[in-house]
Amino acid sequence: MRRLGPSDIEALATGAWILGTGGGGSPYHALLELRRLLAQGAEIRVLDPAALADDDLVAVVSIQGAPLVIQERLVDSRLIARAVRVMEEHLGRRFRAVMPVEIGGMNGLQPLLAAAHLGIPAVDADAMGRAFPEAQMTTFAVGALSPAPLSTVDPRGNEAVVTRVADWPWMERLSRRICTEFGSIAATCKAPRTGAEVKRWAIAGTTSRAIALGRAVHAARAAHADPIAAVLAAERGRRLFAGKIVEVERRTTTGFLRGRAEVEGLGEDRGARLALAFQNEWTLAARDGEPCAMTPELICVLDSDSGEAIGTETVRYGQRVTVIVLPAAEIFLTERGLAHVGPRAFGHDLDFRSAFAA
Amino acid sequence: MRRLGPSDIEALATGAWILGTGGGGSPYHALLELRRLLAQGAEIRVLDPAALADDDLVAVVSIQGAPLVIQERLVDSRLIARAVRVMEEHLGRRFRAVMPVEIGGMNGLQPLLAAAHLGIPAVDADAMGRAFPEAQMTTFAVGALSPAPLSTVDPRGNEAVVTRVADWPWMERLSRRICTEFGSIAATCKAPRTGAEVKRWAIAGTTSRAIALGRAVHAARAAHADPIAAVLAAERGRRLFAGKIVEVERRTTTGFLRGRAEVEGLGEDRGARLALAFQNEWTLAARDGEPCAMTPELICVLDSDSGEAIGTETVRYGQRVTVIVLPAAEIFLTERGLAHVGPRAFGHDLDFRSAFAA
Repeated sequence: MRRLGPSDIEALATGAWILGTGGGGSPYHALLELRRLLAQGAEIRVLDPAALADDDLVAVVSIQGAPLVIQERLVDSRLIARAVRVMEEHLGRRFRAVMPVEIGGMNGLQPLLAAAHLGIPAVDADAMGRAFPEAQMTTFAVGALSPAPLSTVDPRGNEAVVTRVADWPWMERLSRRICTEFGSIAATCKAPRTGAEVKRWAIAGTTSRAIALGRAVHAARAAHADPIAAVLAAERGRRLFAGKIVEVERRTTTGFLRGRAEVEGLGEDRGARLALAFQNEWTLAARDGEPCAMTPELICVLDSDSGEAIGTETVRYGQRVTVIVLPAAEIFLTERGLAHVGPRAFGHDLDFRSAFAA
Repeated sequence: MRRLGPSDIEALATGAWILGTGGGGSPYHALLELRRLLAQGAEIRVLDPAALADDDLVAVVSIQGAPLVIQERLVDSRLIARAVRVMEEHLGRRFRAVMPVEIGGMNGLQPLLAAAHLGIPAVDADAMGRAFPEAQMTTFAVGALSPAPLSTVDPRGNEAVVTRVADWPWMERLSRRICTEFGSIAATCKAPRTGAEVKRWAIAGTTSRAIALGRAVHAARAAHADPIAAVLAAERGRRLFAGKIVEVERRTTTGFLRGRAEVEGLGEDRGARLALAFQNEWTLAARDGEPCAMTPELICVLDSDSGEAIGTETVRYGQRVTVIVLPAAEIFLTERGLAHVGPRAFGHDLDFRSAFAA
């Protein structure tokens, strides 16, 4: 068990936003809440998944919805705690810990807030190693664990439990419909996981990894070094493209933020263009029409000077950006993994090709 | 407690279809299932609400959705029994009896089937005295009883419980969204009611009333008398219009069947036209542009020869129909009742005016 301090949460916000690969929501408001809770003496505790007993019960949480809406309707972290309580009432059992479904963006921070409200730790692990937009895009789904039950709540006092589903896509359909009716944002507690399931299927250490990544960026900034080089070194990534955002198309539809953006090359990329597609997260990058990076590998759009991540809801004309790609968790590169999160899962008619292939 | 026999269920199907005021779904398939269950020796038992203990728990059930879809996707009555079981699992308590939320149409018969599957009786009462399309259009909602929880299931094995809502319209919105995602049809168990609540707020005796109405129609047919006159006598109704259906506009949208139909006058109504609006049920009748009957009073479109009801999903060009109006339950004529089920609740910009006013 480890207690997080002020510098940890600052680093976590920077690192999780990069790992969000455009989605997961901006962590800024969650960071403000974490700062306040820490200042008030709250304990933010992180638990190594290896320390879980096999029959411990872990609440897997996230804010579901369209990132743009999350910017407009601030999330009270007590709402996620409420989603966990609704699940406890449904199960008639208490949780040992909380866990983020995705380390990316705000959803890498919110579980810490919920855990603090509930007086339990957050597990140092997630089920994506990044952010993905849909329910079945998790290691748990790839592992064919049960998709149900799921609790979902909104700030008006509306609460529901999806108690059983035919399959993972049905969980996505049903929970997304409820989320859309709530206003395209909902606090959710996904199917509870046992300690054994977390140890077998979760991606361990991703909160620590996001903190380390954020620290590397902060250290580079403090040393007037290149923060993007620091990201690439920390995550064994590849630089794809640098330029200026010249086009953004964005629509909030069926509970998602979808669209595309275009980058006009600068420096060594002058004369070229990079097209980016997104569904909450960046899903495909194509240089002059040729796909050069794709899901499940992490396409990250960073501010060229600060290395700060830019989200699909905050990308805008004129930003100077550097686009990089980071490796995906190995489980997602298997045949079953790619069926859940490969390019075809996002409607791109492409076989997966790694940006790290020779 | 009373056991229903073969002639009871035949009469119930005819009577409930008339009281459905165009909606509640055609009872034909439910009748076929009831016939089979009876032939197999199942007990169909009806319980007087006065026989309920105050703390008995009653499951209030219906098939929710668009009547046209219900014609296309047959309902297995075990699905409603499953919705009741999901609610029992959620509550951790067993039900004493089942009750229809609406006596109108198929939904007046399905609860008897579910009750037979579950081995418990059906209460001789409902919460509408007819059929209405939305969750908050019940005596329970007018009485400001709790709208939650509600369980909803589909034949694929998808199941959800709406555990809490801000108010009745939110229950309608959320449950309708889930229903729409299920394919515009769902088996639902509404908020459980205590025996005390049923005795205070339900409309008592409506199953018996529907059976008596059906018997009156069957007796008139057997005697070569006018079945429509028999309906008017049994329910103290008024004849509005007779003619031929000459126009039907129908769309299945947001979980409802909506549209309008036009009747061209015949006989003493020759030269006049009657326009009918519907949202699952007939909501408004206007003669040559002048409203002459409206919700919550029961507008019933009957086959001019047989007195058989015609539903909003079965009305079609060329049918010879007689349109009648039957009185509404008194609770719906109060100011609070009209707020829930008056013409404005269906988007008609009209003050309620009774078709029985002098």
